[in-house]
Amino acid sequence: MWLMRQAGRYLPEYRQLREEKGSFLDLVYDSDAAAEVTLQPIERFPEFDAAILFSDILIVPFALGQNLTFVAGEGPRLTPPLAVAKLEQLTEYPARLEPIYETVRKVRERLSSEKALIGFAGAPWTVATYMVAGQGSREQAEARRLAYGDPQAFAAIVERIEAVTFDYLCGQVEAGADAVQLFDSWSGSLAPSEFERWVIAPTARLAGKLRSRFPELPVIGFPKGAGGKIAAYARETGVSAVGLDETVDSVWADRELPSGLPVQGNLDPLALLTGGEPLQSAVRRILDAFPARPHIFNLGHGILQDTPVAHVEELTRLVKGAQWIG
Amino acid sequence: MWLMRQAGRYLPEYRQLREEKGSFLDLVYDSDAAAEVTLQPIERFPEFDAAILFSDILIVPFALGQNLTFVAGEGPRLTPPLAVAKLEQLTEYPARLEPIYETVRKVRERLSSEKALIGFAGAPWTVATYMVAGQGSREQAEARRLAYGDPQAFAAIVERIEAVTFDYLCGQVEAGADAVQLFDSWSGSLAPSEFERWVIAPTARLAGKLRSRFPELPVIGFPKGAGGKIAAYARETGVSAVGLDETVDSVWADRELPSGLPVQGNLDPLALLTGGEPLQSAVRRILDAFPARPHIFNLGHGILQDTPVAHVEELTRLVKGAQWIG
Repeated sequence: MWLMRQAGRYLPEYRQLREEKGSFLDLVYDSDAAAEVTLQPIERFPEFDAAILFSDILIVPFALGQNLTFVAGEGPRLTPPLAVAKLEQLTEYPARLEPIYETVRKVRERLSSEKALIGFAGAPWTVATYMVAGQGSREQAEARRLAYGDPQAFAAIVERIEAVTFDYLCGQVEAGADAVQLFDSWSGSLAPSEFERWVIAPTARLAGKLRSRFPELPVIGFPKGAGGKIAAYARETGVSAVGLDETVDSVWADRELPSGLPVQGNLDPLALLTGGEPLQSAVRRILDAFPARPHIFNLGHGILQDTPVAHVEELTRLVKGAQWIG
Repeated sequence: MWLMRQAGRYLPEYRQLREEKGSFLDLVYDSDAAAEVTLQPIERFPEFDAAILFSDILIVPFALGQNLTFVAGEGPRLTPPLAVAKLEQLTEYPARLEPIYETVRKVRERLSSEKALIGFAGAPWTVATYMVAGQGSREQAEARRLAYGDPQAFAAIVERIEAVTFDYLCGQVEAGADAVQLFDSWSGSLAPSEFERWVIAPTARLAGKLRSRFPELPVIGFPKGAGGKIAAYARETGVSAVGLDETVDSVWADRELPSGLPVQGNLDPLALLTGGEPLQSAVRRILDAFPARPHIFNLGHGILQDTPVAHVEELTRLVKGAQWIG
């Protein structure tokens, strides 16, 4: 059990450190502080089985040479956007990845050997949507238009992201990450043939290369919003586990996914925010859904910042208590 | 074959009429102009088999007593939002539905008997998301929070919408609509148990009541974004046909949906905008996917306003030409 965005603003100790250290990016690039943030939820909730690296999926575009800023209340900005600039105009800065490896090393040193440390990166499609638009974008229209209109130019962007992401994940594993997750946060807007080309294919290549280098490494793929295409994703990418967002019916997923394939998810963050009976029944539904396959309990996407800490405590009791009874 | 939002801004004759007549809402409430707009795509594209009423899903909240405005560049506003006001504070104005019936009558008079006239309404969940937030909302968070936090209050809203929607659709059918479509544009953000409660159950009740009143009436349900939950929607709502958005793999849908159930969809509007080879291969994939069930060719959601008219012409040739060859 762990929770996406478990190191974040719902925790008072995180908010305090943020206040002391400055911007989000300052925190990510201060490896002592980032290690501290990564460990905060593990210290508060001993029931959590894994820490996830405190970082951001846009570190890869930053290393690829786009400038990265987080505008308060508006989200990230990448300049120049690749809808305007050419890929060739960017200068890579691999050194921008080094502090992240340092964070991983520091966390792994301090983390109990019984807990896993999960590294991560954005999947190439999702990272490309930000690189092309220069920011979050409604239905990822800019990237999808480029992918239809100039598939070769778009493929070049995806391949560049893929190459750096492979190096980046290898660096995290070499620094001590026990597993990695590929966040494909915007896979939900793609038509099926585009999904095959820009989600499944790059993920399959990445997972294959990671497996060649680290045969035992668990690679969790999280194709958020993939809906009915999750089964194809699971079969064709070769990931070790599939993350299910909160809109996926867990009973359907158990029937549809390859038998024995581990799954992760998929509590609605709003059920956790609400607490009480809606939380209990949502947890029960998920716990009951996977009788015969490994299941990593998690949310369907990141914890909401106004989630009461007491509800997370209640959740750990519901999930871990259930295991004792079961 | 027809296209969602086929009467709209991609058509020069629509843009001209809009300029003459004023706001979107002025056009909707001018039944002569609305009838004209409804008929424009049929006159331009004789291959289309159906006209869809030119109107808006927010006519129902307007009839329920919220004030409705369309702010240019910002989308619709409903006041007061039900996140703040109570349902009981609203005064119903059923007369606000009458001009829409008048439009239906005028279209049906002028439309060839070989063409179908499709009426429509928003499905209760989707209409509720606007009524609660007072506008379009990111991931429908306001409505989802209310549904978790105060399910009784939310159920009262949904039931009120359901009742007026039933009257509204009956009025459209009595005025001459040959089929109706329920647009559940925001069903994609719901967790499975919430989807059952707020999408499947109200749709099933509405479809059942419509069938009792009009046994032969085709009711098309369009649960946009429902992903893997489409099969449950198809089985449990009793709709006559299911609309598939562009993210649904048509091959998967054909395998997953009840045999013989008609489907509608699901071309990516961006493929139509792009034209050329991406359009051809996307159309081919869809045409090949449903060998043994009725299929209404359509987009996966509304046509984009910068779609070239020539691409729509190309599409009609691809779809209707294929039927001649097939």
